Amino acid sequence: MNPKVMIILGSASDIKIAQKSIDIFETLHIPYSLKVASAHRTHEKVKKLVVEATTNGIEVFMGIAGLAAHLPGSIAAYTHKPVIGVPVDVKLGGLDALFASSQMPFPAPVATVGIDRGDNGAILAGQIIGVNDPEVKKRVSKLRKSYQEKVKSDEEKLISQLD
Amino acid sequence: MNPKVMIILGSASDIKIAQKSIDIFETLHIPYSLKVASAHRTHEKVKKLVVEATTNGIEVFMGIAGLAAHLPGSIAAYTHKPVIGVPVDVKLGGLDALFASSQMPFPAPVATVGIDRGDNGAILAGQIIGVNDPEVKKRVSKLRKSYQEKVKSDEEKLISQLD
Amino acid sequence: MNPKVMIILGSASDIKIAQKSIDIFETLHIPYSLKVASAHRTHEKVKKLVVEATTNGIEVFMGIAGLAAHLPGSIAAYTHKPVIGVPVDVKLGGLDALFASSQMPFPAPVATVGIDRGDNGAILAGQIIGVNDPEVKKRVSKLRKSYQEKVKSDEEKLISQLD
Amino acid sequence: MNPKVMIILGSASDIKIAQKSIDIFETLHIPYSLKVASAHRTHEKVKKLVVEATTNGIEVFMGIAGLAAHLPGSIAAYTHKPVIGVPVDVKLGGLDALFASSQMPFPAPVATVGIDRGDNGAILAGQIIGVNDPEVKKRVSKLRKSYQEKVKSDEEKLISQLD
Amino acid sequence: MNPKVMIILGSASDIKIAQKSIDIFETLHIPYSLKVASAHRTHEKVKKLVVEATTNGIEVFMGIAGLAAHLPGSIAAYTHKPVIGVPVDVKLGGLDALFASSQMPFPAPVATVGIDRGDNGAILAGQIIGVNDPEVKKRVSKLRKSYQEKVKSDEEKLISQLD
Amino acid sequence: MNPKVMIILGSASDIKIAQKSIDIFETLHIPYSLKVASAHRTHEKVKKLVVEATTNGIEVFMGIAGLAAHLPGSIAAYTHKPVIGVPVDVKLGGLDALFASSQMPFPAPVATVGIDRGDNGAILAGQIIGVNDPEVKKRVSKLRKSYQEKVKSDEEKLISQLD
Amino acid sequence: MNPKVMIILGSASDIKIAQKSIDIFETLHIPYSLKVASAHRTHEKVKKLVVEATTNGIEVFMGIAGLAAHLPGSIAAYTHKPVIGVPVDVKLGGLDALFASSQMPFPAPVATVGIDRGDNGAILAGQIIGVNDPEVKKRVSKLRKSYQEKVKSDEEKLISQLD
Amino acid sequence: MNPKVMIILGSASDIKIAQKSIDIFETLHIPYSLKVASAHRTHEKVKKLVVEATTNGIEVFMGIAGLAAHLPGSIAAYTHKPVIGVPVDVKLGGLDALFASSQMPFPAPVATVGIDRGDNGAILAGQIIGVNDPEVKKRVSKLRKSYQEKVKSDEEKLISQLD
Repeated sequence: MNPKVMIILGSASDIKIAQKSIDIFETLHIPYSLKVASAHRTHEKVKKLVVEATTNGIEVFMGIAGLAAHLPGSIAAYTHKPVIGVPVDVKLGGLDALFASSQMPFPAPVATVGIDRGDNGAILAGQIIGVNDPEVKKRVSKLRKSYQEKVKSDEEKLISQLD
Repeated sequence: MNPKVMIILGSASDIKIAQKSIDIFETLHIPYSLKVASAHRTHEKVKKLVVEATTNGIEVFMGIAGLAAHLPGSIAAYTHKPVIGVPVDVKLGGLDALFASSQMPFPAPVATVGIDRGDNGAILAGQIIGVNDPEVKKRVSKLRKSYQEKVKSDEEKLISQLD
Repeated sequence: MNPKVMIILGSASDIKIAQKSIDIFETLHIPYSLKVASAHRTHEKVKKLVVEATTNGIEVFMGIAGLAAHLPGSIAAYTHKPVIGVPVDVKLGGLDALFASSQMPFPAPVATVGIDRGDNGAILAGQIIGVNDPEVKKRVSKLRKSYQEKVKSDEEKLISQLD
Repeated sequence: MNPKVMIILGSASDIKIAQKSIDIFETLHIPYSLKVASAHRTHEKVKKLVVEATTNGIEVFMGIAGLAAHLPGSIAAYTHKPVIGVPVDVKLGGLDALFASSQMPFPAPVATVGIDRGDNGAILAGQIIGVNDPEVKKRVSKLRKSYQEKVKSDEEKLISQLD
Repeated sequence: MNPKVMIILGSASDIKIAQKSIDIFETLHIPYSLKVASAHRTHEKVKKLVVEATTNGIEVFMGIAGLAAHLPGSIAAYTHKPVIGVPVDVKLGGLDALFASSQMPFPAPVATVGIDRGDNGAILAGQIIGVNDPEVKKRVSKLRKSYQEKVKSDEEKLISQLD
Repeated sequence: MNPKVMIILGSASDIKIAQKSIDIFETLHIPYSLKVASAHRTHEKVKKLVVEATTNGIEVFMGIAGLAAHLPGSIAAYTHKPVIGVPVDVKLGGLDALFASSQMPFPAPVATVGIDRGDNGAILAGQIIGVNDPEVKKRVSKLRKSYQEKVKSDEEKLISQLD
Repeated sequence: MNPKVMIILGSASDIKIAQKSIDIFETLHIPYSLKVASAHRTHEKVKKLVVEATTNGIEVFMGIAGLAAHLPGSIAAYTHKPVIGVPVDVKLGGLDALFASSQMPFPAPVATVGIDRGDNGAILAGQIIGVNDPEVKKRVSKLRKSYQEKVKSDEEKLISQLD
Repeated sequence: MNPKVMIILGSASDIKIAQKSIDIFETLHIPYSLKVASAHRTHEKVKKLVVEATTNGIEVFMGIAGLAAHLPGSIAAYTHKPVIGVPVDVKLGGLDALFASSQMPFPAPVATVGIDRGDNGAILAGQIIGVNDPEVKKRVSKLRKSYQEKVKSDEEKLISQLD
């Protein structure tokens, strides 16, 4: 099956954050592709990946990067598809990466989620794909509902421990 | 035509930021609906708006709010559609609103754009809708390209002034 | 005895902070009830808990949450009782949660205490209940005075160690 | 009628913020007393005011101050009644005052509201008094509901302007 | 004379900051070229400008940009010449742009100067060129010395006014 | 010998920072007195200590505290002697304590040194006492010079290791 | 009369902040000397001023500077007398200057007061000189007491206006 | 071979950051000299080192320091050669050092790289030297290209692990 999401890591060291995304995509049965490319170190690769992917059915991009995290913004420069930014905490608690992802100028938005939140980035990708894919939409709803059950069972365990 | 985007303002005083979104939606021919509702003051209205809209064809929500900007997160609690957050600078340069919109827990992401960036929020909405609507996609591309021309003509004006 | 305070945790992982509150409530003989519910994941549960509790004699609510900590604000949307917010340090040193709890718009205040300060949140609850409950008031005074003794004995121990 | 709330300003220049509190107290028919005293400049006066007031029926204190805003914390040192802190933006966007009010050590909490939010401080005082005063409680509810109507009429005005 | 420095503005609205650079380059007799191009909006133009310039004798690049200021980093992706970043204060006091320029990953440094400091950016360019150009080096020294005189005469004026 | 400096700790847990001060005072032969007292928990003790000490020959006070570090400011409210503030990192990297110590209103300054810098606080106390005590002044100079030697020998060790 | 305090401005543009110091020194009858010199632009002058002044009876130095405010630290490098730092808000709300003044390494403390607080810097200088000069000490006490009266009369004016 | 870069450490404890620079200089065959000197503790040594080095063929200086990191700025006061600043994270995540290095006043720029980025500081030095030294320029290009390969092989390893 052709991937619908392309995840690009700014550095192989960000894999822990990407793994959270991958787990969600597996649960949602959304085919994805994982790449390592850097806005500053292998810029041409970013461009090539994004331009090709845009014409090959990728519906959403996700850039995961820390520091002066230009990667999601660089992706946004080459596609008109939605681009999700996941800021990674490498220095300054991730504040630098949060600003670099969210504070984009007009007209190149990056849909930024929380620091180190590869999981939320994947949910957002699922929601975007789900706008027109009722199967994915159903699975997103199911996943979110299962989480409500988890909150409930967490509470029960917690309270039984306190008694 | 049924609206595809619902813009909710946390306060009528945020209209200047919403106006930037509206201008983009007009350009992109995306029908929208504009509401004022507050996560804290008229919470039930938020819920009612979001639940009804979700079943009436709204594809993307946009929450525009300042301070402890819970509005986009509150919208996200009631829908599995993508929710865009536009943080507004009321205090602290908008840092409080940026955190409140982006730092959402799993599994309730808000797709956060830059502080006061109603324009980028609307572009992002257009990109999401464009995933399955080739007309909107074409208009997003056209708008972004026209902006490249603007950068070019800005440069020419600027340089002619400097000569 | 009916609980007078309802503690709601945004996540079971915040139990360490809640434990500090519980210890104080035990000391002050204030009956409390402990729940896990999330402003974004189980919003309806928050509402149900708060609305029922408001009519069942709860005098003070306490919301303990990290990140974009909307929980105390969500509680505040459903009750006119005082709501105490305890921001938890999950990311950014807890700055995001501090802002999300304190920077609430009019007219939905959250009485915010320090980052990770479940203990101070409970003292504040005791002070509020103590406004009309002379027994609780007496116990709050006693607890605060015992702490003064502790400061004194800490000093003696410290100085004897330095000699 | 004896005052139930004592508002202490750290400096006469903070009167604009206090005025927002006063307007709310008038609406809620809560008798209040207004003082100017400084944690650093007229500390003894703070002590005298607080100690006397505590024995004269004051139920809630409110300290309004900017910069290294020690005033609410100083009040808390002399009373076991609830103390509300309103941080004022004099420098650094009010961040210094927000920290000085909220980050109090155990066991001396200050119930901190948002930067420059004299209005929310007064609502919180009303909620605390309302725990045992059904008339005040009713007026707090009414005020909050009237605000919901205002949000509604703001929306109507706004949307009629946009048409 | 062939330009030795290429100044790229992220937006024509940053011209006030660039003007400070231009004034210094005129004083130092360093030929420069001024362009407007955006890391996100006209990325291909950035690439073309930088690649051509690198082979046409440009010795130093300067990127002037605000917000998620990716421009200097994007320049650094296409050249091995030194790249100077001048962060512009558009939002958050320029903190976002300062981080985006300075916090670059290995091996793509940007030589970042202070917020809105087009003047210091140009001095730095002069110092870099002066490493091998004794005329420019002499003029940098002269300019810095003349500034010392200015400090001296400022002091005299100031003190005579105070007398 | 009568103490010339009074060190007050906000909490016995700050002893590690105070130890750095004590080591310096031993080196400078400056007699000191060490107390534990809290601006919020044992305020009257702070007052008593400061008022008595002011009339008993104490020349400089030092307040060491974290969080909303009101201790140095509280000392300053009771004496016209110089008060040194040492902010301690308990939360937020010590930013809250740094603001609480430095951002004091007129006319109650606190001479603030760096976060966790008990050593620098003691040097500053030595410099103040040294204004009129030539022996202390000499010892401060000697200590600072011995540190220059240390930097020199550190360099030698370092470079010999690298060879 | 020989000056006892030397005020050094990093830039003539900081005169507004220095004027607050001068007004206090006039009130306290403390002779002062005012200079303009820059840690980076006229470093040798800083050194010369400080070294000469140290041997000519100056008891306290005051450095007033914004941005990367190295001036007070540079003064501290040349004298063992106490050095007061007054951070000036030029950018970032003065946070850069506050850090540059307070976060000094061992053993070169700067006694830092609040952002833009030339007045508090002068009071601190008066307190340091007053350690051994009973006349100055008396005037500092008087000035601080007169301020207490001012707070009192401010309160009366304020309350009479509200009636 | 005469050194072309002088690295000055503010403290021997910063050697870990300097080591990253040294490794790059070895790779680029750029001769360097390593010194320990402090802007505040051994200021005269800084001056002597810089003045002598400037006349002995040093082309670029690098100051590595934490806290109120005045070292790079102090170097800049004594030379018209380019000065690179590497802020070190000792407190506050390195924010104090980043500000102290970047926010320099006119006309004394410091070319600031990211927090703890000794490696990027060395690359920048290599780029500056490479402006007129084709051999160094070639080696910088080679090093950057080899890093692109590394990104590529990192990706391959990563993806093979995931399969």
